Amino acid sequence: MTATTSAPTRVALIGAGRMGSFHAESLARRIPDAELAVIADPADGAAQRLAATVGCPRWTGDPAEAIVDPSIDAVVIVAPARTHAALVVAAAQAGKAVFCEKPMALTLDEADRAIVAAKDAGVALQVGFNRRFAADFRAAHQVVTAGGIGTPQLLRSVTRDPGLANPERVPPWTIYRETLIHDFDALLWLNPGARPVDVYAVADALVAPAYKASGLLDTSVVVIRFDNGAIATAEANFSAAYGYDVRGEVFGSAGMVTAGAHAQTSMRHYTASGIRQQTVRGDAALFHDAYTAEMAAFIGAARNDTTPEVTGHDARAALVLALAAIESVKAGRPVPISEVDA
Amino acid sequence: MTATTSAPTRVALIGAGRMGSFHAESLARRIPDAELAVIADPADGAAQRLAATVGCPRWTGDPAEAIVDPSIDAVVIVAPARTHAALVVAAAQAGKAVFCEKPMALTLDEADRAIVAAKDAGVALQVGFNRRFAADFRAAHQVVTAGGIGTPQLLRSVTRDPGLANPERVPPWTIYRETLIHDFDALLWLNPGARPVDVYAVADALVAPAYKASGLLDTSVVVIRFDNGAIATAEANFSAAYGYDVRGEVFGSAGMVTAGAHAQTSMRHYTASGIRQQTVRGDAALFHDAYTAEMAAFIGAARNDTTPEVTGHDARAALVLALAAIESVKAGRPVPISEVDA
Amino acid sequence: MTATTSAPTRVALIGAGRMGSFHAESLARRIPDAELAVIADPADGAAQRLAATVGCPRWTGDPAEAIVDPSIDAVVIVAPARTHAALVVAAAQAGKAVFCEKPMALTLDEADRAIVAAKDAGVALQVGFNRRFAADFRAAHQVVTAGGIGTPQLLRSVTRDPGLANPERVPPWTIYRETLIHDFDALLWLNPGARPVDVYAVADALVAPAYKASGLLDTSVVVIRFDNGAIATAEANFSAAYGYDVRGEVFGSAGMVTAGAHAQTSMRHYTASGIRQQTVRGDAALFHDAYTAEMAAFIGAARNDTTPEVTGHDARAALVLALAAIESVKAGRPVPISEVDA
Amino acid sequence: MTATTSAPTRVALIGAGRMGSFHAESLARRIPDAELAVIADPADGAAQRLAATVGCPRWTGDPAEAIVDPSIDAVVIVAPARTHAALVVAAAQAGKAVFCEKPMALTLDEADRAIVAAKDAGVALQVGFNRRFAADFRAAHQVVTAGGIGTPQLLRSVTRDPGLANPERVPPWTIYRETLIHDFDALLWLNPGARPVDVYAVADALVAPAYKASGLLDTSVVVIRFDNGAIATAEANFSAAYGYDVRGEVFGSAGMVTAGAHAQTSMRHYTASGIRQQTVRGDAALFHDAYTAEMAAFIGAARNDTTPEVTGHDARAALVLALAAIESVKAGRPVPISEVDA
Repeated sequence: MTATTSAPTRVALIGAGRMGSFHAESLARRIPDAELAVIADPADGAAQRLAATVGCPRWTGDPAEAIVDPSIDAVVIVAPARTHAALVVAAAQAGKAVFCEKPMALTLDEADRAIVAAKDAGVALQVGFNRRFAADFRAAHQVVTAGGIGTPQLLRSVTRDPGLANPERVPPWTIYRETLIHDFDALLWLNPGARPVDVYAVADALVAPAYKASGLLDTSVVVIRFDNGAIATAEANFSAAYGYDVRGEVFGSAGMVTAGAHAQTSMRHYTASGIRQQTVRGDAALFHDAYTAEMAAFIGAARNDTTPEVTGHDARAALVLALAAIESVKAGRPVPISEVDA
Repeated sequence: MTATTSAPTRVALIGAGRMGSFHAESLARRIPDAELAVIADPADGAAQRLAATVGCPRWTGDPAEAIVDPSIDAVVIVAPARTHAALVVAAAQAGKAVFCEKPMALTLDEADRAIVAAKDAGVALQVGFNRRFAADFRAAHQVVTAGGIGTPQLLRSVTRDPGLANPERVPPWTIYRETLIHDFDALLWLNPGARPVDVYAVADALVAPAYKASGLLDTSVVVIRFDNGAIATAEANFSAAYGYDVRGEVFGSAGMVTAGAHAQTSMRHYTASGIRQQTVRGDAALFHDAYTAEMAAFIGAARNDTTPEVTGHDARAALVLALAAIESVKAGRPVPISEVDA
Repeated sequence: MTATTSAPTRVALIGAGRMGSFHAESLARRIPDAELAVIADPADGAAQRLAATVGCPRWTGDPAEAIVDPSIDAVVIVAPARTHAALVVAAAQAGKAVFCEKPMALTLDEADRAIVAAKDAGVALQVGFNRRFAADFRAAHQVVTAGGIGTPQLLRSVTRDPGLANPERVPPWTIYRETLIHDFDALLWLNPGARPVDVYAVADALVAPAYKASGLLDTSVVVIRFDNGAIATAEANFSAAYGYDVRGEVFGSAGMVTAGAHAQTSMRHYTASGIRQQTVRGDAALFHDAYTAEMAAFIGAARNDTTPEVTGHDARAALVLALAAIESVKAGRPVPISEVDA
Repeated sequence: MTATTSAPTRVALIGAGRMGSFHAESLARRIPDAELAVIADPADGAAQRLAATVGCPRWTGDPAEAIVDPSIDAVVIVAPARTHAALVVAAAQAGKAVFCEKPMALTLDEADRAIVAAKDAGVALQVGFNRRFAADFRAAHQVVTAGGIGTPQLLRSVTRDPGLANPERVPPWTIYRETLIHDFDALLWLNPGARPVDVYAVADALVAPAYKASGLLDTSVVVIRFDNGAIATAEANFSAAYGYDVRGEVFGSAGMVTAGAHAQTSMRHYTASGIRQQTVRGDAALFHDAYTAEMAAFIGAARNDTTPEVTGHDARAALVLALAAIESVKAGRPVPISEVDA
């Protein structure tokens, strides 16, 4: 509710898909200091349609054109994962602040190039680990950093999506690169200062077994050991019948903190068949406020030239765990971090 | 997320206080089809300050000027309660759709004049009973209207504010006219089709006993009997140490439904002294989404010329219960509805 | 787990109905220091059947015989309410410690006679207000007495039975004398030191309206004002579709405490139709441990000649509220306590 | 509440420690069909002291004497783990029904000998996996076996003890043999019909690091893959600051079921510092009813010559997982079940 005396931050949005549309709404309507200036998406008509919906004055099929536009202050990247790192580099080199959806990169080389590009350009680089902006996870993190649970000993992070829409389109290792990457970041964030030692992962195609042959893994458990002794478990599945299930738990020498809600509202219905509550059905419901808050934080970092709360280094650290998990599944054994990040 | 091809609804906001500021933010930023065109408040500088904050291009100290402005489509009234009804009449007579914060009126005559004015002008008139737009109360209402609890037999509605800031400024009977009026509406809404028969109320000044002599009542319990046999309890207090406490409960022949949340987030902290959750501290936190949704619904009704979900008749019905409760406190006995609304 | 070196307390049980059977099991099996020596019930064969079930060596159709038996140390009265007071007097005069199910008496004269008889005989007299022995209510009471909620301002007590089996057999005013008497005691206990000022009650036959003409009232709300300013609500209904619902709430100047569980176990089942928990279906499930604990406490008081935690005075105080509530329903107005207990 | 016409089952209790004392109380007082006839414990005075406490007429320092006593019908073994299997064999060969606390055996040879002995003697053999008798776990199991969550895909079982009293006395591998053995059984029971494929375990001494050198492991995470594709996680720690934490979770193709309670009672205390609930502090509080129910079930099986709900085969199956977990910790890699149980 602060005054907006200075000009808004002009944003180019790269990607007009589902998450791109959400961020477009936030930028156009929910974040006073931001102005959604242009939407870019190579898909036929996608940028134009989204621009019409949110009242964005310009659109283009060419992300590069939007990135280099000198009237643009910041770039929000919500494109396919394989294009992320190159777009971050291009935006940074154009001197723009950059928000990039997770994963920021698929290889450590890519990640390093993105980090260096942002550093060299002196621009803010924020990555889309939205759980860090969810009120319950944030409160849990505050408890941990305030010493409220002592030294972490056991951690758990869970992600279960409500449904696997098009199994044939899911790239191999998506469960690590795009889903569990959230959990990896959450576990690193909730075990502050600790470094991972090794990773063991098992996975299977239980939701859509027919696609296992083509590389789909839809269910996984990952165990991570840290140098402070803590042992973390991350768990993902692509089809939760009851909705969208994201939880975190940190157990330590002085207590435990948990985060994650299943109930859609506080409404409870009592009948002869018991007590019933409705569940949260999707990420846009569960993380509506977190998605908005992370974008508002990015705009704030862009305007004030401050270090974002989630940086390229965080993206790289989570990627290291994803790469180790992938290697572990391939090798059928625990994989020391040094094997993937020498 | 629908396209906004037509021009936005131009809104005049009357009142730049705390709730006025919230609605100003909603109109300026959270509701795509609305345009906050002018803010009016007689208090020195208040309108101008709020206009600067939310980027509203015009302001005035004269509500009447804003209301008659022919470029204005709708008026949102968030002024002191005693001015509400006259402002509703003026806005309706100027042909504007009207949103009026509760209570819409302090007497039945006022309420009737407001209702008639809106009807004669053919404009939408919506009243600020925000609980009807809170997700949990809404889900509870759906259960009731779907027959999920059978016939209502016992109802309860609770409002406990986190703090009584300036007891010397609280007008007499505020607890009924401005606080319990929410509960009265909720109880009428959650017992659909039933009519109240009589009302018994007791009250005291327990939070700020020093102000009892000057008419302050800060704690009250009200019992309402309905013509379907249901018995309802409404309860209010002006100082809940743990935060903002709003709950509803409907018990019927086939079950029960409850609404109302105390926890601020799903975070739970477990230590040697037990499990701890943080509580919701204020109405702006608890009802952020409901306040926004009621305003969006109003803009929708204004644009589409549909009957709002909460009408002047609803305001009048809740007022009848408030008047009966006040009469009951004065008389020390149950008061038949016919005594206050012949 | 204390040693049982001394002889067990020999108990006569008067009444072999549902609650009598429960207490018989407790005395025979769950309370080491007690010995169930005789069961008396005038109903044909009832005492004998229960004696066989629990392994009690003697039975009789004549309560008086059991009471005067010199080998008996204590009498547990679980007979029809109208016989309670006279049985208490007889047992006290025979020098036995007495446990009497609620209500101990139906009139104040009866109550006074019972109290005086116990006092004159110097025997322990405990009344069956089992909520005082329920772990959650007990924890709530500890919070209140430790000052954890400051000064009580608003209280609530709820009793909803799962079903009304034989409406034709329910004596008039049962809802006050036998059901809400629990709530009256709970409210007095949870507002320590305060005295009731007046009582307002409304009631109806909503569960079994056909029996209203014959005096059945199955739904009631009662409002009690106390001399410390606190306002209490008690609420009862004879047919909760979802099970057995007993709750307490005390709100005060420094916070709130609540007690009462709906879920049968911690099990939660999540499916596409939401989260489901099973509910507690009956009092024997909800209060199993409380019923046992109150009986163990009685045996302890009988053995150690200490004042029981729930005395005849407590029974009388709750009865006063029941009588005032009955008078209020008859008169249709609030009834000062002085009207029923001059 | 059934009649006890036939003679009670005469039980010899082997072991007068903490759990032995609990079972002694159950046998002496809470299970009508049982008679605690003798207590045996080689520790000086232990059997005699417990016998005095629970009113058991006989005691001895020699378990063998109690086992061969022809007047004894059943033997309850609560001795140190290393003695379990031999005691089971001795009791079975003496023709007694046998209840053995977990772990029934420390090696597969021992387990096989115990199973064969019971089979050859035709006696009931029940093992102390008490979670199977806890109401919440039982309800969860019923949901799973009724198909309420579809096919299990992810399971979790957690055990966190409130405190590690004497780390110097904890034998190596206790966390698997005595603690996680419960979780292993729970996971096998909650994934009915599935067979484990391989096991990966990591462990550390985080609670009492000074004892790591002497073999203490107080924190562990175990991952088990099953032949139906399900992946299970078991997790244990010896020092939970907030009390005793036992939880189970089964996620499947059609939903999820969870069991496990943290709150001691339903009491909630709301203050300016939030909502507070007390936690369950120990196993005797959490599993009081489950411990009693498993013993009652054993007595029932002994009397009716039926197969117990938890058999020697179940003990062996859980032991296989413990042995694989131990091997995995030693080898630092996942261990196929075939490696420990060819």
